[in-house]
Amino acid sequence: MKKDDCIFCRIANGEIPSRTVYEDYAVRVILDLSPSTRGHALILPKDHFDDLYEISDEYLIHIAAVSKKVALLMKERLGTDGLNIIQNNGETAGQTVRHYHMHCIPRYQGDGQEMLWEPHTLPDGEMDEILKKLTD
Amino acid sequence: MKKDDCIFCRIANGEIPSRTVYEDYAVRVILDLSPSTRGHALILPKDHFDDLYEISDEYLIHIAAVSKKVALLMKERLGTDGLNIIQNNGETAGQTVRHYHMHCIPRYQGDGQEMLWEPHTLPDGEMDEILKKLTD
Repeated sequence: MKKDDCIFCRIANGEIPSRTVYEDYAVRVILDLSPSTRGHALILPKDHFDDLYEISDEYLIHIAAVSKKVALLMKERLGTDGLNIIQNNGETAGQTVRHYHMHCIPRYQGDGQEMLWEPHTLPDGEMDEILKKLTD
Repeated sequence: MKKDDCIFCRIANGEIPSRTVYEDYAVRVILDLSPSTRGHALILPKDHFDDLYEISDEYLIHIAAVSKKVALLMKERLGTDGLNIIQNNGETAGQTVRHYHMHCIPRYQGDGQEMLWEPHTLPDGEMDEILKKLTD
């Protein structure tokens, strides 16, 4: 169900205009207004879910299939096989709008977005401790 | 089908040991050896696909469902509702191993991984041109 006070609900359902790349019964894919790179798009479900924890399996599966369509479209039309799929959940993860959305970010040589994150090395003991938390 | 010379095929199929968080008939979820944050995990399909362009819909859909399981597990066990789902395709996008994999990166207050990318503003004309490329 959509939420009246959610801007992504309103965009997904066509109440606020957007640059729409693809649309079907369940999702709208739009160009991000603050793109990381040229062609940065967002997949928005038409129903409201805050995040990955909340989204229905039906939507999640549909969005996965759409992400592949968008990937292939970008490869063909934008001429790049560099693509980041990014989906942020929660404020600490940089989710700025609390409506589930998936970023499709085409990448180009020298686009200045080299590193997505800083890798670390953790001591074995710490890794084992995390594993224990997740599997016990 | 798995590829003998692919390290992620070998890890996914248990030929190389790993810290396994979850496993089923199709995927293995392991702790990343160079984590971004504590609990950074990778979802690896047991069959080989280079990337999102190549992966079968069956695997893609299954991995989407597993990502939600992992998200809920991390929320419960690691005590955070911050999570980045990241899936890189192609060298320009930072894909270092050419075997499709999905990063699940739990996020914490002050983990020092604040920004995933630098947002830009493009002129309307440039945005319209990109839209034309993608939709014509």
